[in-house]
Amino acid sequence: MPDLDLEEFRRLGHQLVDWVAGYRAGIAGLPVRSEVAPGWVRSQLPAELPEHPQPFEDLLADVDRVVVPGTTHWQHPGFFGYFPANASLSSLLGDILSGGLGVQGMLWSTSPACTEVEQVLLDGLATALGLGREFTFAGGGGGSIQDSASSAALVVLLAALNRSSGGDWRETGVEGTECVYVTAETHSSLAKAVRVAGLGARALRIVDPSPGSRAMSPSALAAAITEDLAAGRRPVLVCATVGTTGTGAIDPVPEIATVAHEHGAWVHVDAAWAGVAALCPEFRYLLDGVELVDSFCTNPHKWLLTGFDASMLWVRDAAALPDALSIIPEYLRNAATDSGEVVDYRDWQVPLGRRFRALKLWAVVHSHGLEGLRAHLRGHVALAAEFAGRVRDDPGFTLAVEPSLALVCLRVVTGGGDAADDAASRTVLERVNATGSALLTHTVVDGRYVIRVAIGSVATEAQHVRALWEQLVTTAAQVRAEAAAAR
Amino acid sequence: MPDLDLEEFRRLGHQLVDWVAGYRAGIAGLPVRSEVAPGWVRSQLPAELPEHPQPFEDLLADVDRVVVPGTTHWQHPGFFGYFPANASLSSLLGDILSGGLGVQGMLWSTSPACTEVEQVLLDGLATALGLGREFTFAGGGGGSIQDSASSAALVVLLAALNRSSGGDWRETGVEGTECVYVTAETHSSLAKAVRVAGLGARALRIVDPSPGSRAMSPSALAAAITEDLAAGRRPVLVCATVGTTGTGAIDPVPEIATVAHEHGAWVHVDAAWAGVAALCPEFRYLLDGVELVDSFCTNPHKWLLTGFDASMLWVRDAAALPDALSIIPEYLRNAATDSGEVVDYRDWQVPLGRRFRALKLWAVVHSHGLEGLRAHLRGHVALAAEFAGRVRDDPGFTLAVEPSLALVCLRVVTGGGDAADDAASRTVLERVNATGSALLTHTVVDGRYVIRVAIGSVATEAQHVRALWEQLVTTAAQVRAEAAAAR
Ligand SMILES: Cc1ncc(COP(=O)(O)O)c(C=O)c1O
Ligand SMILES: Cc1ncc(COP(=O)(O)O)c(C=O)c1O
Repeated sequence: MPDLDLEEFRRLGHQLVDWVAGYRAGIAGLPVRSEVAPGWVRSQLPAELPEHPQPFEDLLADVDRVVVPGTTHWQHPGFFGYFPANASLSSLLGDILSGGLGVQGMLWSTSPACTEVEQVLLDGLATALGLGREFTFAGGGGGSIQDSASSAALVVLLAALNRSSGGDWRETGVEGTECVYVTAETHSSLAKAVRVAGLGARALRIVDPSPGSRAMSPSALAAAITEDLAAGRRPVLVCATVGTTGTGAIDPVPEIATVAHEHGAWVHVDAAWAGVAALCPEFRYLLDGVELVDSFCTNPHKWLLTGFDASMLWVRDAAALPDALSIIPEYLRNAATDSGEVVDYRDWQVPLGRRFRALKLWAVVHSHGLEGLRAHLRGHVALAAEFAGRVRDDPGFTLAVEPSLALVCLRVVTGGGDAADDAASRTVLERVNATGSALLTHTVVDGRYVIRVAIGSVATEAQHVRALWEQLVTTAAQVRAEAAAAR
Repeated sequence: MPDLDLEEFRRLGHQLVDWVAGYRAGIAGLPVRSEVAPGWVRSQLPAELPEHPQPFEDLLADVDRVVVPGTTHWQHPGFFGYFPANASLSSLLGDILSGGLGVQGMLWSTSPACTEVEQVLLDGLATALGLGREFTFAGGGGGSIQDSASSAALVVLLAALNRSSGGDWRETGVEGTECVYVTAETHSSLAKAVRVAGLGARALRIVDPSPGSRAMSPSALAAAITEDLAAGRRPVLVCATVGTTGTGAIDPVPEIATVAHEHGAWVHVDAAWAGVAALCPEFRYLLDGVELVDSFCTNPHKWLLTGFDASMLWVRDAAALPDALSIIPEYLRNAATDSGEVVDYRDWQVPLGRRFRALKLWAVVHSHGLEGLRAHLRGHVALAAEFAGRVRDDPGFTLAVEPSLALVCLRVVTGGGDAADDAASRTVLERVNATGSALLTHTVVDGRYVIRVAIGSVATEAQHVRALWEQLVTTAAQVRAEAAAAR
């Protein structure tokens, strides 16, 4: 038997579960950001692979010695960078089940439950979020779990290219006249999808924001489309973002959809981070206009307690992705597919194979209930509001934009002008990160350096956000004092 | 706290590890193939998601009641379909670690260990397989874990498009003159990659096999390239397969590479299933010519004990994928990336985020050692040779092609001619599958129906292959008798 003996697996499995519990119990005491230098991890591990079996305990020792110090702890309560990637313990339980079953659900027939549990969950979550029946399988649409919002954006672009060409795209490829509309705030995954799909950057139209905002201007969109049409180009896809990565801006979906649909373009809503908040009635406004769009994406792996990777993508037309992506070689033919009665999720994605990711999402929804999920989201939004209030009240700081849900963007104010404020903001961020008690990342808004505080890690509670605020205040005071001394 | 209490996690984690051990212990007693009808799984689960937290035990009860009967058991010892997807228990241990850490390794800086453990492992495995130093990071190339061979094929196609256009592709997209060369036996993921990349099916050249084989003819390749060049088209990529999905055929890599490189085309070797066997010196011939190619892919998630998803892709030029795929928005800028001293694996793949997949591969290599991995591979090849010997010796069967490693392709012989043999083969396959003791899939070779016996499931031992043979013999005898009675 090449595999572990079952008793040994039990023993080691229990040990690992305990290791994980211990890691999470102690995580707040670790520096959030790994401070190792490039090459350090490599230098600590033997270059040669072992010829003979080694005790698992040795691997665990290497994990403690090398991997843990080499890790930036995304599950740390002081992780405020990027958007946090929730990996709750309930999600892990579901993932252990998935790994134990070890099924590969490329086709319905290669594991009916892998497909149908996903369908049930995505129909249920569509309803819970307030997406209309048109996005459920019962309503002729449907949802799927993608590995990421990046991949979701790619497959909807492919479906849009296919639809807009009347299917010719499958045979003749892209024409070079297709256009895709985004804003400067749209996530880079859209630019990547455009590149991957063979359109090249020249196909990308960066639509201006409405004056004084970072949200797409519907009239600028209309103008851009009109210009492209006049030049013989073809509007294929408009991506509206609900909750941009940089600042949490929200594009006006209803107006965008109206403009886009006049010209037959596919409208995709990228709500990778913010979308899950629509589970709460008070944030249901995030879905305004979604009844008009073609597809909608939001990531449980960001803010809905589910371990990476799990991004949910709903489409209004359940045939759109298979029409674009299906290729059936002989060795994948089977009666269920031929019957047309089943969904083969391989045709909804780029890779062929798929893990049983629905189990971790199911475990999360089941363990917390919708009320538990809402409490998780609301808790972070409340912490962000409290934090933003302090920023607003402190003359040493300013909000770079109004806070969006649980994202607060701020700058340090020095009194020395824009360049000095930008430099101070950068220094403060770097010093806070260097302490290891919190991790912050930045963006640039209208040319100005901005500190992003993205609240959303599973373990983050009021005390951690308050500690971050104290640290920002103290660090900014030091930086201001140093600047004054240097003048 | 929205997450599970740590003590509760320990208790449930142990329970789940035991559940997995129990599932694997009893798996041989389950029907391999799920016999549920479309919609059954959905009908068994509530459409509404719970408002309040539910006991985990209830979810586990639903898994036993609905998911297990709705599952085709890929880890069953009687799984001989497609190519098996190894999900060993050692791999699961590594994956529990990965889920526990919950890191997202898109950039080196977002978790140095997530990147560097992968680099160490892929350098080590390159050496162990016999890939030259040029495919290691030390030699200017490097490896990465992709989700699947399908995605690997896509990213190398993108790198090839980028290189062949001198980088213009990023700005102007595909031109419509690019050509990609495969055979009729090449996996459908190549056709899908060509479609995704915007080339359309017209860019795909199906090169003829050498007479009497299913392997690509180098002279036919040369002729196809010459014709395309003459017509003003651009040869971009040639995919050579080592171990085709249908029959395990091996394209002549050295000759193909020589022809392709004369015309500047990228050569990719897709050894998704077979490549891992090169760990054994006696199968090192699988890598013949690989020193000439641009990229090489093989899947630990097929036959190297590692749970889906884990596909290894090596490229000769470590800059090729980042050159094609990198897009750096402000919020991902960081000092390590700017220093140029690190690998940011997000630029080696389509999705942005990544799990710490190296941990499961590491756990496998560590727990079994290279000798253990070789024993696993050799065991299956020996079983296939024994099985093929029986097919050869039995006048009631014929080998459709010579066995390839652990893949045996056969037909039932009825004495009634080709159509009767095809029908009998199909009936035998369907009846064997219906018993639930084995799962077989089919292909079509030269227009003839062929039963594929892909030996490679982690749990498969001599007794299971022998039992399959007995069942084939008995079932074929019945089918022949019924046919005779009907005449
Ligand atoms: C708005 C938005 N879209 C897409 C993405 C990419 O998400 P993923 O990592 O799932 O591809 C992000 C990531 O931060 C995001 O904020
Ligand atoms: C030769 C070959 N290439 C590619 C693939 C696709 O593999 P993956 O599921 O990793 O995309 C397969 C799957 O069977 C294969 O046999």
